[in-house]
Amino acid sequence: MNNHNFKPHVVIVGGGFAGLACAHKLAKSDNVRVTLIDKNNYHQFQPLLYQLATAELSTPDVATSLRYSLRNHANVDVKLQEVTAVNPATRTVTTREGQSYQGDFLVLAAGSQANFFGTAGAKENAFPLYSVEEAQRLRSRILAVFEDADRDPKLVEQGALNFVIVGGGATGTEIAGALADMINLTMPTEYGDLAVKYARVYLVDHGKALLAPFPVKAHDYAAQTLQRKGVQLLMGIGVKEVGPDRVLLSDGSSILTRTTVWAGGLMAAPLAANTGLPQGHGGRIEVKPDLTVQGFPRVYALGDFANIAGPDNEALPQLGSVAQQGGAWTAKNILAEIAGETPTPFDYHDKGIMAMIGRDAAVAAIGKKRHELDGAIAFAAWLGVHALLMSGVRERIEAFIDWGWNYFGKCRPMQVLDRSDEGRINWGEGPESESLSDAPTVKTVR
Amino acid sequence: MNNHNFKPHVVIVGGGFAGLACAHKLAKSDNVRVTLIDKNNYHQFQPLLYQLATAELSTPDVATSLRYSLRNHANVDVKLQEVTAVNPATRTVTTREGQSYQGDFLVLAAGSQANFFGTAGAKENAFPLYSVEEAQRLRSRILAVFEDADRDPKLVEQGALNFVIVGGGATGTEIAGALADMINLTMPTEYGDLAVKYARVYLVDHGKALLAPFPVKAHDYAAQTLQRKGVQLLMGIGVKEVGPDRVLLSDGSSILTRTTVWAGGLMAAPLAANTGLPQGHGGRIEVKPDLTVQGFPRVYALGDFANIAGPDNEALPQLGSVAQQGGAWTAKNILAEIAGETPTPFDYHDKGIMAMIGRDAAVAAIGKKRHELDGAIAFAAWLGVHALLMSGVRERIEAFIDWGWNYFGKCRPMQVLDRSDEGRINWGEGPESESLSDAPTVKTVR
Repeated sequence: MNNHNFKPHVVIVGGGFAGLACAHKLAKSDNVRVTLIDKNNYHQFQPLLYQLATAELSTPDVATSLRYSLRNHANVDVKLQEVTAVNPATRTVTTREGQSYQGDFLVLAAGSQANFFGTAGAKENAFPLYSVEEAQRLRSRILAVFEDADRDPKLVEQGALNFVIVGGGATGTEIAGALADMINLTMPTEYGDLAVKYARVYLVDHGKALLAPFPVKAHDYAAQTLQRKGVQLLMGIGVKEVGPDRVLLSDGSSILTRTTVWAGGLMAAPLAANTGLPQGHGGRIEVKPDLTVQGFPRVYALGDFANIAGPDNEALPQLGSVAQQGGAWTAKNILAEIAGETPTPFDYHDKGIMAMIGRDAAVAAIGKKRHELDGAIAFAAWLGVHALLMSGVRERIEAFIDWGWNYFGKCRPMQVLDRSDEGRINWGEGPESESLSDAPTVKTVR
Repeated sequence: MNNHNFKPHVVIVGGGFAGLACAHKLAKSDNVRVTLIDKNNYHQFQPLLYQLATAELSTPDVATSLRYSLRNHANVDVKLQEVTAVNPATRTVTTREGQSYQGDFLVLAAGSQANFFGTAGAKENAFPLYSVEEAQRLRSRILAVFEDADRDPKLVEQGALNFVIVGGGATGTEIAGALADMINLTMPTEYGDLAVKYARVYLVDHGKALLAPFPVKAHDYAAQTLQRKGVQLLMGIGVKEVGPDRVLLSDGSSILTRTTVWAGGLMAAPLAANTGLPQGHGGRIEVKPDLTVQGFPRVYALGDFANIAGPDNEALPQLGSVAQQGGAWTAKNILAEIAGETPTPFDYHDKGIMAMIGRDAAVAAIGKKRHELDGAIAFAAWLGVHALLMSGVRERIEAFIDWGWNYFGKCRPMQVLDRSDEGRINWGEGPESESLSDAPTVKTVR
């Protein structure tokens, strides 16, 4: 097979953990050519987006150019386009830019978006945290409310320094811890006039426990750690409405805030509805054990874009490691199919889960074991886990470890307030300008 | 003087090299309190903006949070506001945000903006390179034209991969070298399909020599180095008009391009016109030898915002080192005035000038000596000069040196295409859709 154009063509939609891992593994084979399509020119490292939002990392720390990552592979072509429709019968995708790509194999790995579960005002007013752009927007908002309150301290009474996090999973717990550290450690040294001690972080979850997928003891450890950092936990409480200047809770109370972080769940990216393929929980594409779609043998769906059954028939969680392993497995299956073999069922190897609660605490669940870690050990373990996850992108590890030491050393924060949050905050006339029902305001203890 | 509020108050407008150096030096005194006002929350390192534009550095590499930089000084307060008017008689400034600040001393260091010299279409269509936001916009444009040409190679015929740099001073020469390196070294490995070899960099200057302030031999060395990298030099030619899709030159020819970089000169920031103070060349505030304004004894103007006479009565150039030394000198003068002494004339110590021409060449003029440097030595010297210039911000040096090694090692480029260049490029119907007179097109040799 010397003529490039006669090699089987694999079209991959999405350069996340799943799509990029698949492309990297296929790139090593001389028997295929690959077109990787993504609406961004970069791969984003979702597990660290909360640190981009809290200005502890900068954009290039969590975003790697896809072209750069794949630059040494002549059989992989990257296209910066947004796939808007899929014809699974012909394995053809069409893009917003008006082009189409047809593959002998099609790999759908378009990822997720925030799931607001129909909560009123959430789409308009809340800050999700799944993409680099969303994290940049949240960072700009966090920095802007501190600056606005510094200019006019009365805005504190309008909730300028209240931060509400919706959802107590890994993302919600991690952003809560990072925000509390930012408020406790960084901001007081930087705002001479402003009483940063009035800043409050609230975490709201309709469930009873933080970090539900972790073992029970981790729930308590996470709660105690966040409370020690000053985070107010409102458990067993839902969010009824996210307004422009407050959040209305299911118990009838409200919290004045301009910064509601939505860590309340994910659903498949909008493309899923334009594939004609069966969608399951969260709108994700239903797949067979080998990650192909029933009735479409050479169409694969992976990562957060797919509902993948685990060994106990429960769906595998939306995790970078599931996506990455699924991508590599699919590449292996595609090469097997090209060699005339049958694709094999995806065998996910659970290496465990981990969440960082601020700089100095972490929880990990590895197999049946459970760990709560404090201080430097917590950080080192967390660093190691993420370095492993990054290993598809070898050259990044060293930079990442470098950064780790800086981070632990509490060095240079990335507090550059740019225009990512385009909408200037309209502070209006104060609490009187109600946009929600006149619910009682949650008392903030000062 | 124990009561903070009774200490003399210094209001500094602008957190660039001049304002920040002044603030840092005043911060060490117990006898003053300082308010530093800037429209951005960061200090920007202008000499490296061209590397932000060519995706070799990321934003936090060239922008340092002002609050972070001054966090250890309780007598310095940072305000994120835009000063829009100055009353020099009362030493009061008012901001767009509707607040005013009155000082016992006023330091005006609001910097520069691009000077288009009335060139038609330049303000609308050219990319200046003086601020972080401008560099981010240019970076997005450069990455976007490569992506657009990758999607539709016919756009190359519309000039998608032509880059025109207006001005052959240090900024123009540096961005030309960096762009040529990007095209020659980085892009061919990343765009499989696209014939990157069609990319062209043009440098246009109405003068006869590059790097005019350098000695004559440096002019030739810069020209030869750029030509070796493939840059087309159009010397002795002016720019008549910058259109949305082409540049019209004084010789009647035109170059199709969507990326015209304006390195054609600077003038004082808009605030200068709202001070009521005398403006000289480039709209800059005229100052006495001690950097105060005639008739307003405790009003200082510094850096790119001021016309400062040098020892031979020619104005000092717009350089970071002039601004930084002026800032420190002014702090010393203010402390002297508080102690009842007279301010002394600014004595600029010329440490030399240097320009980098791509990764592997540099020119330097130090005193009467002239150096042309190649390869690692060029880079090391350049790195040392800039590390010295950064020395007001100690903790940055280490990061900078780290970065230097990465850069020289041609590591990880920062090619994250974000939304900094908001306007999507309107490619229209090709060269027929003329917006300028039907001038002959400059032949690009392929």
